Amino acid sequence: MTEPLVYLNGKMVPASQAHLAIYDMGVVMGATVTEMTRTFRKHLYRLDDHLSRLSRSLRYTRMDIRMSLADLAKISLELVTHNARLLDDAGELGLIHFVTAGEVPTYAGMAGLQPRTTPTVCVHTFPLPFELWARKVQAGAHLVTPSIRHVPPQCYDPKMKYRSRMHYYLADKEAQLVDPDAAALLLDLDGNVTETSGANFLIAERGSIVSPTLANTLPGVSRAAMIELATQLGIPFVERDIQVFSVMNADEAFTCSTPYCLMPVTRINGAWIGEGKPGPVFRRLIEAWSQEVGVDIEKQIIEGAKRRSEASTGR
Amino acid sequence: MTEPLVYLNGKMVPASQAHLAIYDMGVVMGATVTEMTRTFRKHLYRLDDHLSRLSRSLRYTRMDIRMSLADLAKISLELVTHNARLLDDAGELGLIHFVTAGEVPTYAGMAGLQPRTTPTVCVHTFPLPFELWARKVQAGAHLVTPSIRHVPPQCYDPKMKYRSRMHYYLADKEAQLVDPDAAALLLDLDGNVTETSGANFLIAERGSIVSPTLANTLPGVSRAAMIELATQLGIPFVERDIQVFSVMNADEAFTCSTPYCLMPVTRINGAWIGEGKPGPVFRRLIEAWSQEVGVDIEKQIIEGAKRRSEASTGR
Amino acid sequence: MTEPLVYLNGKMVPASQAHLAIYDMGVVMGATVTEMTRTFRKHLYRLDDHLSRLSRSLRYTRMDIRMSLADLAKISLELVTHNARLLDDAGELGLIHFVTAGEVPTYAGMAGLQPRTTPTVCVHTFPLPFELWARKVQAGAHLVTPSIRHVPPQCYDPKMKYRSRMHYYLADKEAQLVDPDAAALLLDLDGNVTETSGANFLIAERGSIVSPTLANTLPGVSRAAMIELATQLGIPFVERDIQVFSVMNADEAFTCSTPYCLMPVTRINGAWIGEGKPGPVFRRLIEAWSQEVGVDIEKQIIEGAKRRSEASTGR
Amino acid sequence: MTEPLVYLNGKMVPASQAHLAIYDMGVVMGATVTEMTRTFRKHLYRLDDHLSRLSRSLRYTRMDIRMSLADLAKISLELVTHNARLLDDAGELGLIHFVTAGEVPTYAGMAGLQPRTTPTVCVHTFPLPFELWARKVQAGAHLVTPSIRHVPPQCYDPKMKYRSRMHYYLADKEAQLVDPDAAALLLDLDGNVTETSGANFLIAERGSIVSPTLANTLPGVSRAAMIELATQLGIPFVERDIQVFSVMNADEAFTCSTPYCLMPVTRINGAWIGEGKPGPVFRRLIEAWSQEVGVDIEKQIIEGAKRRSEASTGR
Amino acid sequence: MTEPLVYLNGKMVPASQAHLAIYDMGVVMGATVTEMTRTFRKHLYRLDDHLSRLSRSLRYTRMDIRMSLADLAKISLELVTHNARLLDDAGELGLIHFVTAGEVPTYAGMAGLQPRTTPTVCVHTFPLPFELWARKVQAGAHLVTPSIRHVPPQCYDPKMKYRSRMHYYLADKEAQLVDPDAAALLLDLDGNVTETSGANFLIAERGSIVSPTLANTLPGVSRAAMIELATQLGIPFVERDIQVFSVMNADEAFTCSTPYCLMPVTRINGAWIGEGKPGPVFRRLIEAWSQEVGVDIEKQIIEGAKRRSEASTGR
Amino acid sequence: MTEPLVYLNGKMVPASQAHLAIYDMGVVMGATVTEMTRTFRKHLYRLDDHLSRLSRSLRYTRMDIRMSLADLAKISLELVTHNARLLDDAGELGLIHFVTAGEVPTYAGMAGLQPRTTPTVCVHTFPLPFELWARKVQAGAHLVTPSIRHVPPQCYDPKMKYRSRMHYYLADKEAQLVDPDAAALLLDLDGNVTETSGANFLIAERGSIVSPTLANTLPGVSRAAMIELATQLGIPFVERDIQVFSVMNADEAFTCSTPYCLMPVTRINGAWIGEGKPGPVFRRLIEAWSQEVGVDIEKQIIEGAKRRSEASTGR
Repeated sequence: MTEPLVYLNGKMVPASQAHLAIYDMGVVMGATVTEMTRTFRKHLYRLDDHLSRLSRSLRYTRMDIRMSLADLAKISLELVTHNARLLDDAGELGLIHFVTAGEVPTYAGMAGLQPRTTPTVCVHTFPLPFELWARKVQAGAHLVTPSIRHVPPQCYDPKMKYRSRMHYYLADKEAQLVDPDAAALLLDLDGNVTETSGANFLIAERGSIVSPTLANTLPGVSRAAMIELATQLGIPFVERDIQVFSVMNADEAFTCSTPYCLMPVTRINGAWIGEGKPGPVFRRLIEAWSQEVGVDIEKQIIEGAKRRSEASTGR
Repeated sequence: MTEPLVYLNGKMVPASQAHLAIYDMGVVMGATVTEMTRTFRKHLYRLDDHLSRLSRSLRYTRMDIRMSLADLAKISLELVTHNARLLDDAGELGLIHFVTAGEVPTYAGMAGLQPRTTPTVCVHTFPLPFELWARKVQAGAHLVTPSIRHVPPQCYDPKMKYRSRMHYYLADKEAQLVDPDAAALLLDLDGNVTETSGANFLIAERGSIVSPTLANTLPGVSRAAMIELATQLGIPFVERDIQVFSVMNADEAFTCSTPYCLMPVTRINGAWIGEGKPGPVFRRLIEAWSQEVGVDIEKQIIEGAKRRSEASTGR
Repeated sequence: MTEPLVYLNGKMVPASQAHLAIYDMGVVMGATVTEMTRTFRKHLYRLDDHLSRLSRSLRYTRMDIRMSLADLAKISLELVTHNARLLDDAGELGLIHFVTAGEVPTYAGMAGLQPRTTPTVCVHTFPLPFELWARKVQAGAHLVTPSIRHVPPQCYDPKMKYRSRMHYYLADKEAQLVDPDAAALLLDLDGNVTETSGANFLIAERGSIVSPTLANTLPGVSRAAMIELATQLGIPFVERDIQVFSVMNADEAFTCSTPYCLMPVTRINGAWIGEGKPGPVFRRLIEAWSQEVGVDIEKQIIEGAKRRSEASTGR
Repeated sequence: MTEPLVYLNGKMVPASQAHLAIYDMGVVMGATVTEMTRTFRKHLYRLDDHLSRLSRSLRYTRMDIRMSLADLAKISLELVTHNARLLDDAGELGLIHFVTAGEVPTYAGMAGLQPRTTPTVCVHTFPLPFELWARKVQAGAHLVTPSIRHVPPQCYDPKMKYRSRMHYYLADKEAQLVDPDAAALLLDLDGNVTETSGANFLIAERGSIVSPTLANTLPGVSRAAMIELATQLGIPFVERDIQVFSVMNADEAFTCSTPYCLMPVTRINGAWIGEGKPGPVFRRLIEAWSQEVGVDIEKQIIEGAKRRSEASTGR
Repeated sequence: MTEPLVYLNGKMVPASQAHLAIYDMGVVMGATVTEMTRTFRKHLYRLDDHLSRLSRSLRYTRMDIRMSLADLAKISLELVTHNARLLDDAGELGLIHFVTAGEVPTYAGMAGLQPRTTPTVCVHTFPLPFELWARKVQAGAHLVTPSIRHVPPQCYDPKMKYRSRMHYYLADKEAQLVDPDAAALLLDLDGNVTETSGANFLIAERGSIVSPTLANTLPGVSRAAMIELATQLGIPFVERDIQVFSVMNADEAFTCSTPYCLMPVTRINGAWIGEGKPGPVFRRLIEAWSQEVGVDIEKQIIEGAKRRSEASTGR
Repeated sequence: MTEPLVYLNGKMVPASQAHLAIYDMGVVMGATVTEMTRTFRKHLYRLDDHLSRLSRSLRYTRMDIRMSLADLAKISLELVTHNARLLDDAGELGLIHFVTAGEVPTYAGMAGLQPRTTPTVCVHTFPLPFELWARKVQAGAHLVTPSIRHVPPQCYDPKMKYRSRMHYYLADKEAQLVDPDAAALLLDLDGNVTETSGANFLIAERGSIVSPTLANTLPGVSRAAMIELATQLGIPFVERDIQVFSVMNADEAFTCSTPYCLMPVTRINGAWIGEGKPGPVFRRLIEAWSQEVGVDIEKQIIEGAKRRSEASTGR
């Protein structure tokens, strides 16, 4: 058995058979909430926090999955146990939960198909793609503020992790006009810095970590982990509205996201931030984080990438 | 041959086998543009207008489907020819085109699957569900302005027909708190009336038809057809920002949408509009429209619904 | 002596004779500031805080009543002393101060009347209507966010207690479409939660009380009392912009207002908050408050309502 | 019989006895809609237009007065017939309708009074105060844009004529800091020119009359009359968003309001507009208007003021 | 006589001696209004329109230059007559007027200098730099929408031609990150397209020319000339709010500015507009324009550039 | 040696010869960043803080002056040493740094001049004009909120000290309509209080100092000094959005600016603040500040003004 499993609407199915009907509400409306969890040494990290955020997203969208968080946790563990066996020793898994609003009866009707009107629930895994981050984790990422703005909470709230992400898609396209390797750092309608399409964004300023508020950003689980570490290390953490001026003049900047934990950001709109390389606050945080999880996070990424590259070049 | 066909990524497949990978960008990001066309007497109505709008949506999102509009038209006709045979004599088809940004390599990776990074292109049909509209086309619909606001064009532009529709989903949930049969009429961030999740909205005021501008609404193909009819009938048509006050004090209101053409709106936020029943402007328009397409549109809906209801009760 | 007194422009008059000219600026423009104070065991509670807020409202509107706060206090006490004698033993009084900008000379002219151009000053009382709150104080209130938005401070500032309340009136009408018992929870122009037409709104979240800021809400006297109690009880209190997402996911919610002190809110837009019943933070606060004022506040409301109901059914 | 009559809640009462309870919703919440009509040669001018706008305001606020417009018209005529007899030959009447949301039961309760929960309906008159306008109609008015902004339609719509006018009150106070004779010209939240507290505002620019849109202003009955006159005179009329720059550089400016019809505005924020005196467009309009109503409008104002001044100085 | 003259504060001075004190208000606050006029065959084109716009800018800023427009015109002609003699036969002049608010006494004080508190008035010329436009006029320009937004009219109005242009400066810097040859097309705070730092922007759409409104753009003199030409050619011209979606899907786009009249825009944010080359509407306009001024405008630019390039390479 | 020196683009020149070309970018676009430092007893106060803020402004505008902060410091000291000798004993210097984006080649071209495309760097001094502040420092200043709004950070960020100040210029003109001695206190687009054209603004409220946030104001060096002093004195300091209501009801208000340190504000929009005279918080701060710098700041201003007045009246 060499294929990973996927949980889909009550069943464990082989990954190659996991798909959605073209009339699923996730496809038709992007009416989907989601989570991404990762493993460290093949154990899920802060799964409870992710499931608890999922339940908040579900409550906001009024979707009733008729399962408890404990059920979801059990399925998650089962999937990881099974699928992790397909990884090499140094590999790690990303685990995705997503829930859509079900299927659209109208569209299903013709084929004599029975549409499911209860939510679609899916849990699946993927190997963490260390090769995507290796260079950036060492040299720092480049972010660009596009003209596209973040969707404001009175349309739909960024505190929910959702998949109606057209603005992220368009924003990243704009950012890549400046640098194909850049990602978008979206501004809100008032011009405040919010987040990237996949991560929370933070700056270090005179010894403190400064974050946008939760009015226009996701309350990231990794962001929360990072705040805990900062507290332990005695690094002050504050939330306030941040403008591009402050990013350009920050001592350091970084993004925070489940799959890679912490990524230095060394360029904003083509300009260097601070000294243009990963700084001391980043370093203290990533070291403390590595200690917490028992894995040298940067090294894992860099070596994982190297292994993957060697594998693909046939060495 | 008892199953409709679906066009999916270059192939015609039976509807029961038409599905998307769980890692399709349409599922993961709602990064999808779409169109809906309908038939009259089993012939597609204004297909060129729909395909031309699709090409504008594709240009805005920078998706390159490597097919011409002529190719899409050919596939569309082929599908309709095939699938219409499965309808009863009086049935009509809805035809859907949708294009997503392709598949996410990262998520596909583990299963050894080959992700497709070019756009996903799908065309499929469904029988028009007349039973959903029969009552409303006679008595008028009820619209409710929810607290959720429409996404502004600087986030993503409503002139594109897209599927990142979380705000529509949430707005309709709010509207249904007032009346389970009501739909949401979304306001923009300045409080102007925009559109519903499925239709353009218009009012009749002192003999004129008044429409929101295209700054915050879809340039509907049916709306354009309606404007042509109004011109022929000598009914003035104007675009301007409309507020709820003007809807509450309109002589008539209606929505305009491909599957049913024109629907009277007789209630807004629980209050009757005009005399609380379909009015003369609505009637003149629907009659002219019926004449244009050679189908009594209202009658088709009402009788289609009756037929369906009889079928389902076994008579 | 069977009729309560009212203070009106320098005189004590029987309630049945207390009225405003139809050309009073309060009638013509809603150019009125106001306060409501209540008694506990027939003694005015935090009268000084109310009068001090009244003086801030007067300063903002540049109305000069030519009376000191001490004068107003004296009149207030006199009224309460007199009018409380008309209550039954368990009754309590609400005391209202309001000041309008005077009378409109133009409108007064014809009748040969002498309009007063100095502010109209009125103080009057009413028995607290416990019967309105008894059910909600036990089961919790239902709030609905309407499409109508709160007036922003650059039009007129909500830190003044004023009577140009058309938006409240319209918002409550909208909320009642969802539930005749519901009240509106107005959002500001950015979609942040503000207040109801009669109360401050707060949520409890992970052990803390969270309040909207004073940029878009009244600095309630009861809210201030509640903050004092929270401090004594060691419950953290924070101000920040709150969105509907956070209300739907709060552990508890409540409103704070002079006549009833604290009211649990258990539903928002039809959805249950927390466990759907008054929670532990509410309970700790209301108990501490009862202790402070020497009255079991909930019990007083419930029994007051019962007594009133018995009276009206003639038992 | 020397006293004018007032219609109040079904009865004709002498003006000196026309008053509202202090717990009327008009007093407590400013929840009031209103109209002002005037006479020319003692006959009501465009009464139907005013009543029809009143009915739109009532519909928006969902107040049901249980009277037809014909009933209101009849009462209005009766009042004018009666009260006009108290005027001198050259005098004219202003006629006011206002409707409040009724009385607040809670506040009424104590005195054993029976509150009326149906709307309060009042119609009353006043002699037009020509003396207030005589100087300005000749030399032009001075308008000042204050920092206070107009209430936007998503709070409550300016197309309704209402009495929650705190922003007007505050704005005029600010304007009078610049010039005690100045009135406020409110800007909307985007900085566009709207209206004054009592009139529509317009500019003349290269031979056309330009007006703010109805998104942020009252659809004035006099404004509509003026548009009719402009059409007859061949003066183009356009609606668009106007900024202060365009007022400062207009050829002429004027306000439009029921009691005085048309008033030249010759100063904005202390700067002269055009040549600093009433211009040719103003003159053509006021002459056409005078012809329409059979009264030299300016002369009536100027002589009416003189007469009043002589009367008051005892000549 | 080898040096051009400059008019500065009442005197004609050689260009090399024309400078401002470091404490001029133009330097200290950017409190400057300006105009740019050009010659065709060494005669000033539409000078009156430019001076008339200058007078509107002066009125808005309340600067009193104590000179009539006729005085300015006379000086302008004198300068052009003199300075044009320094050009080669095919050269043309740009003529600049600018007025600052005078000098800052405080800063001047120490040196014992006498600061001038009346406005600084300067008129100067420069040879039109055809070499900057030659390539773009043939291949089309590239515009980029930056994250920086245009200053809204409630801060200072774009209908004035001013020199507080920090936003233009920053916006162009951002645009050049995408393409060093690109210029910024600024969006307003609502995401509508406005103008570039040096030109009006327009699109052609289904046979019409569409322009942003004058709420957020300069009423360009060349834009007005272009509208006249369009009228003569029977090309409809409309003003409305334009979003990026419509630019990406326009048939053509161009900018309009005094020094080069009309420039095709063939790329927006890296994407081709229409067929990616100057289109028929552009061609008809530029030909009509050339005819009006008796100069082949494109040819003049292309050959002027060639001549300059030959000169600089010493041929 | 009777003339002060000015540093300009690498050279020390006599003040009377320090000027900018009329085609300097500072003149043409207001593309200028700046700083102002002052002396106490002829020694520069917090020069490092000013230069460090200058470097942040330069980074934001991407201007590269090719000089280190140490170079700038050295030049600054040299200038002060030289120029201070021209002062009388009690005089103090203001020191200005400004950097523009260079010169515009196009405009320079004709005269055969060689434009400098690298930034223009200028440092100059002026004697502090105590006479401007003497009366206000004793009686308090009057601030007025104009209808003109502050430029928002998404246009250009107020955290940079810049010279594109047209909005300040217009705002002060409006404020002076109310009182020729008043200065403008600009509101941001949401109606929050920001700053004056030359100073930070703060209020004292119940024993605390409250400041607008840095989202819409300059992070003043004097403001920072004041915060340090407040901390030493145990006066709480908080940042939050402030509305006009809170200024009208503040206990005290003051502005903070380099040349005079701290100025009491006793009137806002014509209304007295607190007791209408400099209050105890102001007094404690100015005394602590005087102690820190070894100069009685108020006395220096008052006596400096008197000396100047005597000098100018020839005594």
